[in-house]
Formats: sequence, structure tokens, C-alpha cells
Amino acid sequence: MPRRRTLITDSSQQPPPHALRSTNAATVKGILIVNKLRTKPVIDAIDSFLQHVRTNYPNVRVFHEDRKDIPQNVEVWRPGEDAEKIDLVITLGGDGTILHASSLFKVGAVPPVLSFSMGTLGFLLPFHVDDFAKALESVFQGKATVLYRMRLSCTFLDKDGKLMGNDGEDWQVMNEVALHRGSSPHLNTIDAYVDGQHLTEAVSDGLIVSTPTGSTAYSLSAGGPIVHPSLSALVLTPICPRSLSFRPLVFPASSSITLRIGERSRASAGVSMDGQVSHVLGPGESVTVRASLHPIPCINRSSIAEPAEAQGEGVVPGKEDDWVRDINNLLQYNATFRSKALLRHSRT
Amino acid sequence: MPRRRTLITDSSQQPPPHALRSTNAATVKGILIVNKLRTKPVIDAIDSFLQHVRTNYPNVRVFHEDRKDIPQNVEVWRPGEDAEKIDLVITLGGDGTILHASSLFKVGAVPPVLSFSMGTLGFLLPFHVDDFAKALESVFQGKATVLYRMRLSCTFLDKDGKLMGNDGEDWQVMNEVALHRGSSPHLNTIDAYVDGQHLTEAVSDGLIVSTPTGSTAYSLSAGGPIVHPSLSALVLTPICPRSLSFRPLVFPASSSITLRIGERSRASAGVSMDGQVSHVLGPGESVTVRASLHPIPCINRSSIAEPAEAQGEGVVPGKEDDWVRDINNLLQYNATFRSKALLRHSRT
Amino acid sequence: MPRRRTLITDSSQQPPPHALRSTNAATVKGILIVNKLRTKPVIDAIDSFLQHVRTNYPNVRVFHEDRKDIPQNVEVWRPGEDAEKIDLVITLGGDGTILHASSLFKVGAVPPVLSFSMGTLGFLLPFHVDDFAKALESVFQGKATVLYRMRLSCTFLDKDGKLMGNDGEDWQVMNEVALHRGSSPHLNTIDAYVDGQHLTEAVSDGLIVSTPTGSTAYSLSAGGPIVHPSLSALVLTPICPRSLSFRPLVFPASSSITLRIGERSRASAGVSMDGQVSHVLGPGESVTVRASLHPIPCINRSSIAEPAEAQGEGVVPGKEDDWVRDINNLLQYNATFRSKALLRHSRT
Amino acid sequence: MPRRRTLITDSSQQPPPHALRSTNAATVKGILIVNKLRTKPVIDAIDSFLQHVRTNYPNVRVFHEDRKDIPQNVEVWRPGEDAEKIDLVITLGGDGTILHASSLFKVGAVPPVLSFSMGTLGFLLPFHVDDFAKALESVFQGKATVLYRMRLSCTFLDKDGKLMGNDGEDWQVMNEVALHRGSSPHLNTIDAYVDGQHLTEAVSDGLIVSTPTGSTAYSLSAGGPIVHPSLSALVLTPICPRSLSFRPLVFPASSSITLRIGERSRASAGVSMDGQVSHVLGPGESVTVRASLHPIPCINRSSIAEPAEAQGEGVVPGKEDDWVRDINNLLQYNATFRSKALLRHSRT
Ligand SMILES: NC(=O)C1=CN([C@@H]2O[C@H](COP(=O)(O)OP(=O)(O)OC[C@H]3O[C@@H](n4cnc5c(N)ncnc54)[C@H](O)[C@@H]3O)[C@@H](O)[C@H]2O)C=CC1
Ligand SMILES: NC(=O)C1=CN([C@@H]2O[C@H](COP(=O)(O)OP(=O)(O)OC[C@H]3O[C@@H](n4cnc5c(N)ncnc54)[C@H](O)[C@@H]3O)[C@@H](O)[C@H]2O)C=CC1
Ligand SMILES: NC(=O)C1=CN([C@@H]2O[C@H](COP(=O)(O)OP(=O)(O)OC[C@H]3O[C@@H](n4cnc5c(N)ncnc54)[C@H](O)[C@@H]3O)[C@@H](O)[C@H]2O)C=CC1
Ligand SMILES: NC(=O)C1=CN([C@@H]2O[C@H](COP(=O)(O)OP(=O)(O)OC[C@H]3O[C@@H](n4cnc5c(N)ncnc54)[C@H](O)[C@@H]3O)[C@@H](O)[C@H]2O)C=CC1
Repeated sequence: MPRRRTLITDSSQQPPPHALRSTNAATVKGILIVNKLRTKPVIDAIDSFLQHVRTNYPNVRVFHEDRKDIPQNVEVWRPGEDAEKIDLVITLGGDGTILHASSLFKVGAVPPVLSFSMGTLGFLLPFHVDDFAKALESVFQGKATVLYRMRLSCTFLDKDGKLMGNDGEDWQVMNEVALHRGSSPHLNTIDAYVDGQHLTEAVSDGLIVSTPTGSTAYSLSAGGPIVHPSLSALVLTPICPRSLSFRPLVFPASSSITLRIGERSRASAGVSMDGQVSHVLGPGESVTVRASLHPIPCINRSSIAEPAEAQGEGVVPGKEDDWVRDINNLLQYNATFRSKALLRHSRT
Repeated sequence: MPRRRTLITDSSQQPPPHALRSTNAATVKGILIVNKLRTKPVIDAIDSFLQHVRTNYPNVRVFHEDRKDIPQNVEVWRPGEDAEKIDLVITLGGDGTILHASSLFKVGAVPPVLSFSMGTLGFLLPFHVDDFAKALESVFQGKATVLYRMRLSCTFLDKDGKLMGNDGEDWQVMNEVALHRGSSPHLNTIDAYVDGQHLTEAVSDGLIVSTPTGSTAYSLSAGGPIVHPSLSALVLTPICPRSLSFRPLVFPASSSITLRIGERSRASAGVSMDGQVSHVLGPGESVTVRASLHPIPCINRSSIAEPAEAQGEGVVPGKEDDWVRDINNLLQYNATFRSKALLRHSRT
Repeated sequence: MPRRRTLITDSSQQPPPHALRSTNAATVKGILIVNKLRTKPVIDAIDSFLQHVRTNYPNVRVFHEDRKDIPQNVEVWRPGEDAEKIDLVITLGGDGTILHASSLFKVGAVPPVLSFSMGTLGFLLPFHVDDFAKALESVFQGKATVLYRMRLSCTFLDKDGKLMGNDGEDWQVMNEVALHRGSSPHLNTIDAYVDGQHLTEAVSDGLIVSTPTGSTAYSLSAGGPIVHPSLSALVLTPICPRSLSFRPLVFPASSSITLRIGERSRASAGVSMDGQVSHVLGPGESVTVRASLHPIPCINRSSIAEPAEAQGEGVVPGKEDDWVRDINNLLQYNATFRSKALLRHSRT
Repeated sequence: MPRRRTLITDSSQQPPPHALRSTNAATVKGILIVNKLRTKPVIDAIDSFLQHVRTNYPNVRVFHEDRKDIPQNVEVWRPGEDAEKIDLVITLGGDGTILHASSLFKVGAVPPVLSFSMGTLGFLLPFHVDDFAKALESVFQGKATVLYRMRLSCTFLDKDGKLMGNDGEDWQVMNEVALHRGSSPHLNTIDAYVDGQHLTEAVSDGLIVSTPTGSTAYSLSAGGPIVHPSLSALVLTPICPRSLSFRPLVFPASSSITLRIGERSRASAGVSMDGQVSHVLGPGESVTVRASLHPIPCINRSSIAEPAEAQGEGVVPGKEDDWVRDINNLLQYNATFRSKALLRHSRT
């Protein structure tokens, strides 16, 4: 029985979005390192990482974005159609680093992403940086499993329905696209359409269209539900609507949602995609959001768990088991009274 | 090109849950009429309906549940494994009548359901009773399209993990299963598990596991999101939790959710399935909820719409277009300020 | 300058509700001990307490409700117009014990209440039982300060507007009066009136009228705001309303709120007052809720705090400073991200 | 018995905030007209108004803010300590016009405000412009009653605790002071203090401190409760907090709330007062909010109601009866199912 399989990076072969499957490793030939900050711990981690790769996987090429502070001995990688082929993305930093990695892959399929925290927990961070050797080994042995995290593809149209900017390329987001009045004192008016049908006119601070991954980010703060990342769905969450009866809506991934600034809107709307400010939309301008063809294959924590550990407590091996942990630890989901039982009166 | 196709009622041939597809009519041989009330308008509607069927579809057999007030000239139908085959269900009444119809089909696939309101709008009521001739014709011509509404299958286990009651048959719900303290003054304690993994301990009035269809019923009142019925998902919504940080959760339809009454729960929990009180669960007892194999094929309003009408405003023909209407009309979704513009000051 | 003052127990001299003022001690002649449970720790605590009182305040009479398990050497106390005069109430137990103490004083003013927890924190529990000697001393020295916690007075009327039960006496609640469908499967319909004016017709599981004290109890679970107990106000919070646009309302203490079961309500409504089930209201029957003339003077934690401690961090001595602590510790108010900063990734 | 009384405009004589009392008219000698827009209907209304005053109250002086488009034959009025004495403020426009009028009275007491809508209902607009003659007559006859709407006074301090700008004068707001990240992509960190005690650290889009009047404005959109304007209270409502357990808080009017931008906040916070952008607060800078000594006496709709009308349905004459109407009409409070009963199925 052959244990090694090839890492799939070709979108045509991709499984249905959000399925959970093993990565087919074997020929990981190009690795892209992504980091935002160049703090001492990050620099040190990259050094150790590079040394480890040189020693153990000497034939692998290591790339990095083109920046002034690029680490030594790595090749420059430029995104786009003609980009060098990457078989594995390594991120070092917080949740925002993965969002940034996602933004580098606007065209075509995304290689599997292995995300390391610098110590502090994050929602999208399955691995501690000190475990990188173990995690890499698991990938090279083809044992890693991935969760395909849905992305949204965003198209901007001007008043006359013509494509705006970006050379016709769609934008891809992993968390959400958010429209917000920003520093305008006035509410904006946005018409929301679902599959071309008028849904509602929102007078509010703004609207969010989120992925299940993004449901624990801005959408949550705005009052949205928590949606499991293995579900394919779009979440529409209003931000401070001037209405008592606005509720978050959850749509199937097959839906397309269009948000158009009302002709009589008093304010324009700033657009943020995964927290990056991009456009400002004026009256009549719009964005259309759909499930992207190119989800992000995120390598799971269970990939490096011991079999005993992974199978304990009824969790199927390879199953996305990090989510329940994150809901409880990071969001302190439903925390109140479990902890209360432990609180005892200290004497004065 | 043969226009007539057979109505599918065999689950093995069923499309993936929630897909939208044409009913394959042709040989509609058995119709089940479902009503809850026997008010004058309902009696009259049934009379007209029966007369119409006798005249236009003389070979069709018409059935009704076994009740004292059964209409004349219809055959008695008894649910179960050996039940007479039904090719079409007709409901006359409110949303509750469809829930009742659903409860009659606990085993195997459910025939397409054609639901008529007695005049007042309801969420699950695409047709006005006065349109029954047109709607029936559409079905017999194989033009009707259905929305497969997901159901949940519920299994009850006692303290020792043994099946409780119901002869091993699962219960099927269309809206939700709700656990509630009922008239007990005390909160209950429920442990929630997802795919066998402990999710949280809820101290609350109760918990709801809802379908997307049920997301506009009790779950909505308890603060849940509105989920489009063509999505496959489970919604977990708490009822008055003793916690600031409990939020509704949305899971993929592949998840199984178990709710077990805590050993130290001060109150037991009454179980309601689609509003019907069934069990009382004591400490240690539990219910496990999964997507049912047998969704309800609900015939769409667009089935009888004129082509022009159906295609207008960008809605694909046969698409579930009733939902946006219902969200806006029935729930007065985001109603406030659209209407406000129209409100003018009346002089004193 | 005389340091000792008399404990005020005469309502005519009472300060405006919710003002914070020192108790005027001096002649505490009658103490009522209130406990719900007779667990070992409670029995032991009562024993120590009695012994302490006998030794240090030999002229004080100690009373207890008439129950089988009444402690030895205490006099029986029966509530009512002719009840023995009580100058101080001691509660031993959880929040529910104070609610019970409140329920004993339906007529006239309520004596100051000194509440001891058995170790576990509660919202209404300023003192640890081990501190009773210090707390008593503070009261007898006239140093104790109280927070007047507002109560609600409830009057029940039948269909014809005639007083129901209770011999014309009003009910007094400290947390809330809650109407709920209980174990009825159907929603009830309740008309809410404010100062005689029709406010809204609620179709829901029920309605809560809460004090600021009760705003952290059931009302909070139902989605209500947290109201500081030194404010005089009534909070109206719906329980699972069939409406997207129902919001909690806060009224001045001068308002009277009437809840009447609608004539066409499908369900009656069970009434709970501070968690005690009392009436069932049928169609046409109602309850009217007003601020009670008799708030509960609750002795503050700051009464026994060292001056330095009490004055630290800008809190005026005698100020209700427990509330911020309780909001943060007990409710884990806004807990998420402060704690998150501390969460570090544990290596696999 | 003298029917005419003097309009109180001297703060030292003012009733406790929020009491409802008759205006003491008699010598209304100076009227200030406030409008924001100069649309045709507004210009026409001002013309009619001026003509009416000239004819009926020839000794009254009419003022207007100093603007280019000031109406003819009115005197210029400049706010400040030495401002001409105003006995009555007339506003013509929407809710924002009253907010603007409020902003003109930063120092000392505010004269009674008579607010006219141009036809469209608003929350703060008791009168239709066509009724101005009747309303004026009521005021001159001393029959008008007012609702004292609480205002907040805001003091800004820099990092070192020194007063910022505004020449030491406090700002006065009628709705709210809102801190918001504005167009910064990053959340800000704000420490909230109550009476000098640290309450919580908020990581969010921002925070709102609102009056009861403002509880139906921005605070409502952010999820706050609806607070009756005759209550004296401060409402603290978070805007999109990164926490599951943040809830709106309601404080007594005696509280002071300080919001200080955290030293490590990634974003500064823009300050809006009643929708007017004013300051930007950086790390360490703060605003302290207290009940203002100078509420706004708003003349009630019931001032011109016929006695029969006013007394009908149990409402005490002069009582703030507009609020229930506004809650229901403007906010469509709890609208859903009352209307649903009326919705009937239209036939296809
Ligand atoms: N009021 C709010 O909650 C706001 C939230 N955001 C979120 O910040 C994101 C950008 O993140 P950064 O670049 O790191 O900005 P950032 O450094 O300002 O961090 C935002 C916070 O969100 C967390 N986060 C990011 N993605 C998450 C996810 N999928 N689930 C749970 N937590 C998540 C991060 O760990 C961080 O604590 C945006 O995509 C947006 O979702 C942005 C603006 C306002
Ligand atoms: N507080 C609440 O909101 C409660 C709601 N219910 C709901 O009532 C349902 C039972 O309905 P009935 O037998 O008709 O009882 P019912 O006659 O008491 O009606 C409940 C209301 O819910 C509506 N409804 C039912 N299913 C719906 C759906 N899927 N979407 C939107 N509205 C829907 C009905 O039209 C009716 O207005 C339960 O399945 C439960 O969802 C039950 C108890 C409490
Ligand atoms: N879903 C819910 O949240 C429900 C809450 N309750 C509350 O329980 C109260 C009765 O309490 P118990 O007799 O002790 O019953 P219980 O023993 O069932 O306790 C209810 C819980 O509420 C807490 N509690 C009571 N008063 C509180 C307050 N003012 N602020 C914060 N927490 C408070 C208690 O400490 C306890 O944790 C009722 O007045 C009602 O407010 C009752 C039923 C349902
Ligand atoms: N997302 C939101 O809801 C936002 C609300 N605002 C509110 O707008 C106010 C400024 O108002 P305008 O200058 O007219 O700006 P605007 O012309 O942008 O109108 C804001 C809306 O709020 C309404 N409004 C104002 N005060 C109200 C009150 N006390 N109760 C109910 N509705 C009220 C107005 O009628 C108008 O519909 C601010 O004080 C703030 O409360 C400001 C920004 C965002």
C-alpha cells in the first residue's frame, strides 16, 4: 500500500468545497513563507525553519514575498498568473497573516496552508511554532488532513454596470467583505439583492457578507451567528441597522448577493475585504459576492495528533476538532456559569 | 419529447436533499388530504376539491386520516410501513397542517406536498385554496417544481444508552425539536455534544435544534438567524440561557447533535417536536438529532406562475422565490424605515 | 456627637427608594434568621451565629420562620400585620434565600437585610459567612450602609376587574414577575398597557416585568439590559416573542404596567414571582405592576471594608461598589478578549 | 385667578429634570427660529409663521442664527453667555433640527422648544407645521406642558488629564456621545470607568453613551434597550464589540462615565455628539459624561390636544403620550404578527 500521495494543487481535481481530506504530499517542491511582522521571534522562527528545511528537505525551494526585509537565502515570489508554483504555504503570525496569505492567491487554486502561531492562540492557528518540524513531517508523509475553508469572490460594478478596477480579476476574501459608512456621520442606504431579487433596503452603518470562517470575526461582533467552517454558506449581517427587525441571514453557497449603494444614500460606503480597506462605493455602485471556486485548504491540528489522542472522546481522526476548542477557549462561548461554580467568596 | 414524468416517491431515487427539481407526475394515483380543523371553509374547500378530482381525474383514489369527522367518499389511510401508497399530499389550513402532514410520514420517503392556505398567509403556504384546480393541473402535467425541505430525525436514549419508546422508529421533524423546562420553576442543565464531542453545558430554559425551515419558527423567537430553506444545516439556538455569551450555532447537515440532561439538572426537560409535546427527559436521558434521509418535497408557488411572471425580476423559473416575499411580508423583515418614509403627520 | 443611631424600620421615615444611606443601628432588638436549606454548613453557621449573638448581644431576641427544622433556642416568627418587630434580617444561603426573605415582608417596611453566602458568590450576597462577626459589629455600631433595592408590587384582577385572591394584599417581588406559557404548546397573547395606555399585543412565550435588581436574573437571560440597582425603573422584557421587532423597554418607577391575557389567547399564562409559581392567568385576567412603597434595604459589602480599601480607586465610601465586581466576576461581562491575551498555545 | 404665567427659563428655578410641568408663558418676548434646510416648504412655513407672529404677537422679537440665508425681518442671534434672551425656540424640520437647536444652548438653561415637522413623522416632532397657530396660542396662554429631556454634558481630557479645547465649556448632547473607529480598519480599545471605578476594557468599533431620548437613535441600532424619556438614566451601548458577553448597561443619572482610549489601542476614536463629528481621541485621551444641569424642555403634543382627546383612554392630561405612538408608528415596535393577521393570500 503506497503511503505517499501527491499534494493536490490543481483546482480541476479539487474536492467539493469544505470536504475534509488528506493532503497528498510526495512532491512538495515549493514552499512559500508568509509573515507580516518581522519581530525578533518571527525572524528567529524563520531562521530555524529554513535551516530545518535545508537539512531535511534539501530539494525544496523556499519563497517569500518581495519585501525589503525578506529573509536571506529565499527566492522572491510574485503573485499572479505566471507565479512560481507553490505546493505549501507556511504562515507565521496571527490570524491576519493567514488572511494576508489568502489575499496573495487571487487566481486559481490555493496550495495547502500550514499556520503557526507565535504562541498566542488564534482562530485560524492550529499549530504552535515550536511544533513546525513535526507538522512538516506530517505533510511530507502525506498524513496531513485539510479543511477547505470557503472564500468569497467579489466583483465591483460601477453605476452603469461596468466592471470596476482590478483588471477584471475578482477579489477573494476568506473572512468577509464589509461595507461601512466609515467616518461619514450619515447612515448609508444599501439595496441588497439575492440571486437578482430585491431582498431589502438597508439603512445602517453598513452590511457584512461573511463566510463561515468569517462568522467568528466581524460578523460575530455585529450580532451574527457562529457558523461551522465546514458548512458552505454566505452570512449577511447588518451593522447597526436603523430598524428593529433586521436579523442575520444565512444563504446557501450557490447564492449570489449584490449590495448596491442606494441612489439617494446620504453616505458612500467604504469597502473592507478581510480588514483591508479597498474601494469606496458611491450611489449606484455595487459589489456582487459569490462563493469562490478556490477555497483555502487549511491543514488541521489533528494532522499531527497522536492516533490515541485524535480518536479519544469520539472524534473521528482527521475531523475538524479544533473548532469546538476555539469556540470555548477563544470566544469563551457560554462561559458564565461553568466558571461561576468555581468562584468562591474571598473573605474581606 | 415526453412531457410527462412519474412523480418520484421512492427515496432511493431521491435527489440530494434540498435540490430543487420538477416533480415527475404522470401517474398520481393516490392523494392524501390533510386538514386539522373542520371549520366551514375547510369543509367547503374539501367538497369542491373532491368534486373536482372525481370529474377531472376519475381514476385517482383519495385518502384521509382515520378520524370521526372524515369527509364522505374518501378512503381511510393509516400511516406506517404497510400504508397505502400516496403520490401527492394536499394540506388545507395553516403552517401547522403541513407540520402535521410531515408527522404522518415517519418511515420512508415523503410524497410531494401541495399546501393551500384558507386565505391567510403562512410561511409554508404557497397556494391560495381558490387556486387548487390550477395547481393540481400543474402537478398532473408534471410541471410542478419542489423544494426539498430538510427534516431532522430524532433518537431518544435513556440513562443507560438504550433506545426509548417509539419501537425503535425515529421521530421526524420539519421545524425543530425543542427542550424546555416547561412549568418547572427551575432552569435545566443540558450537555450539548457535536459529533460526540462535548460542546457546552447549557443552563437555560431550554435548547432548540432547528432545520432551516424551522429557523423562522421558534428558533427565530429565541434569537436565531434566518436560514434559507434550500441550505442543509442544523441550527442550535438556546432559550433564555443563564449566560451572556451563548450564541446561535449553525452546523453542516452531516453533524449529529446530542442533548443530554445533566445528571445534576434541577429540572427535567419537556420535548416538543414541531410544537407537539412528546417526551419528558430526566437527568441522564438524551436525544440525538441528525438530518433525516427523508426531506419533504414541497411544491413551489412558481409551479403555477405564468412564465413571464416567474422569470421577471431575474428569478430563475422554478427557483424558490416565495422566501423573499415571506421574509418581507410575514416577518416584516427590516420593515421600519421603508414604511416610515410614508408616514406623514396627521394634523391634530 | 452621638455615633449610634437607630435602625430605621418605619416606612414613613424612609428615604426615597434606592438612596444609599447608613443604617441607624443602636437598638437592634429582634433578628430574623432566614435560610432555605438545612445542610450541614448552614446548620453549623446558624449555631455559631446564635452562640455569637448570645455572648455579644445578650438582649437581642432571635427569630426564625415556623418550620419543622427550626434551630433550637430561637423564637418562632410569623409574618403578617401583627408580626413581631424585626430590626435586622440575616440570610444564609444563595440569592434565592434573599428572595425568600423578601417574600416574608409583604406588608409595611422591610428591615435591613444582611446576606451571607455559604462560600459561593451570588449577585445578592455581599458577605462571606465567616465574616459574620465583623458584619454584625458594623451593624450594631451603626456603621452599616444600605442600598435600597426597589421592589414591585403586583395586583391581580379577574376578567371583571375584581381583585383576585391574596385577601387584597399586594404581592411584592424583588427580581421580577414573569408570565409564561409553561407547558402549554401554544404561544400566549398578552396585551401590555403602560399607565392605562395600550402599548402592544405580545404573542410570545411570555413577558417579564423586572426591577433593576432582577435585570441580572431572568430578564438578562431573555435578552434584557443590565440596569444598575440604584436606579428606580421597571424593565419590560419579552420571552421568545413571535416578532422581529420586540425590544426590552425601560420605564420610570412612576409607571404602572398592566399585562392582560388576550381574550383570544390560545394559552393561559403561568405567573412566577421571584421564581415562585403562584397564579395561572386565563383570558381576560391581568396583573398590574408598580414600584412598591417598600424596597429592601440591603446592607453593603463596603459596610465592613477597611476605610483605605473602600476609598481606593475613587470609590466613595459606602457607595455600591459590589456591582461592578459582580458584573465582571459573576456574569463574566465582556470577558472574551481580556482573557484571550493570556491564552497561549500549548504544544501538542 | 391669573391665567398667564411666566415661561421659566432660569435654571435655578428649574424643576427636577424630566418632571412634566406646564410652561409658564405670559411674557414670551423673544422667539428663536431654528431650521437646517432652506427648502421651499421650510421657507414658506417660516414666512407664514413670521406673518402670524407679527399680526398676533406684535411685541415679540424674532431671532435666527447668523447665516447667509437668514429669513428677512428677523434679528440675528448669536449663542453664548451674552446671547439675547430667548423665551421660546421654534424648530422646523426633522429630528436633526432639534438636535441642532440643542447644540446652540451650551451654557445655562434652555428655553422651551416647540418642534414642527414638515409633514413626515419624527421621534422628536410632536407638531405638524400646519398646526403652528394653535400650538403658539397654547404656549402664549400658558397651557403648554413640557417634557424635560435630559442632556449629557461631556468633558474632554488629554493624556495628562488637562481639559481639551472648547474653552473649558462642556459640550451638551441630547441623543448621545459616540466613539467610533471611523475609517480606521482596526478596532479600538477603550477603558470604561463608572464613578471612577474601572468597569471594563472594550475592544470594539466603539461605544455609545446615550440619554433616554437617544435610546431610540444610534444606541437602538447598536442593540440598546428603549428607555422612556421621562426616566433619568445613562445608557452605555457597545458598537460591534469583539466579545460575546457585552450587554447594554443602564446607569442612574447621578453616575459619571469616563471613556478613555487604551494606551495600546491600535486605532484612535472619532467622537460624534448628536451626529456631529467633533474630536478625535488618541491613546490616553478621554471623555467624561454626566447628566447635564440643563435639560431641554420639549413642548408636548398634548398641549394642544382637546381635553376630551387628552383624557381619553386613561392618559392623564399633559402626560407624555406621544411616546407610545412613536414606538409603535415610527419604530414599528413589535409589528409582526398584528399585521400578519391582516395579510391575506392574493390569488395568483
Ligand atoms: N468590530 C469588529 O469586530 C471588527 C472586526 N474586524 C475583523 O478583523 C479582521 C482582520 O483581522 P486582522 O487583520 O488580524 O486585524 P486586527 O489585527 O485588527 O484583528 C482583528 C481580530 O480579529 C481576529 N480574527 C481575524 N479573523 C478571525 C476569524 N476568522 N475568527 C475569529 N477571529 C478572527 C484576530 O485574531 C484579531 O483578534 C477582518 O477580517 C474583520 O473580520 C475588523 C474591523 C472591526
Ligand atoms: N415562542 C415561540 O415562538 C413558539 C413557537 N412555536 C412554534 O410553533 C410551531 C408549531 O406551529 P403550530 O402547530 O402552527 O402552532 P401554533 O398554532 O401555536 O402556531 C405557531 C406560529 O408559528 C408559525 N409557524 C409555524 N411554522 C413556521 C415556520 N416554519 N416558519 C414561520 N412560521 C411558522 C405559524 O404560522 C403560527 O403563526 C412549532 O414548530 C414552533 O416552531 C411553538 C412554541 C413557542
Ligand atoms: N432562564 C432563566 O434565566 C430563568 C431564571 N430564573 C430566575 O431565578 C430566580 C429565582 O432564583 P432561585 O430561587 O435562586 O432559583 P434557582 O435556584 O433556579 O436559581 C436561579 C439562578 O439565578 C440567580 N439569581 C437570582 N437572582 C439573581 C439576581 N437578582 N441577579 C443575578 N442572578 C440572580 C441565582 O443565583 C441562580 O444562579 C427568579 O427570580 C428568576 O429571575 C427563573 C427561571 C428561568
Ligand atoms: N447607525 C445608526 O443608527 C446611526 C445613527 N445616528 C444617529 O443620528 C443622529 C443624528 O441625527 P440627524 O442629524 O438627523 O442625522 P441623520 O439625518 O443621519 O438621521 C438619523 C436618523 O435618526 C433619527 N433620529 C434622530 N434622533 C432620534 C431620536 N432621538 N429617536 C429616534 N430617532 C432619531 C432621525 O429622524 C433620522 O431618521 C445621531 O444623534 C445618532 O443618534 C448617527 C450615525 C449612525
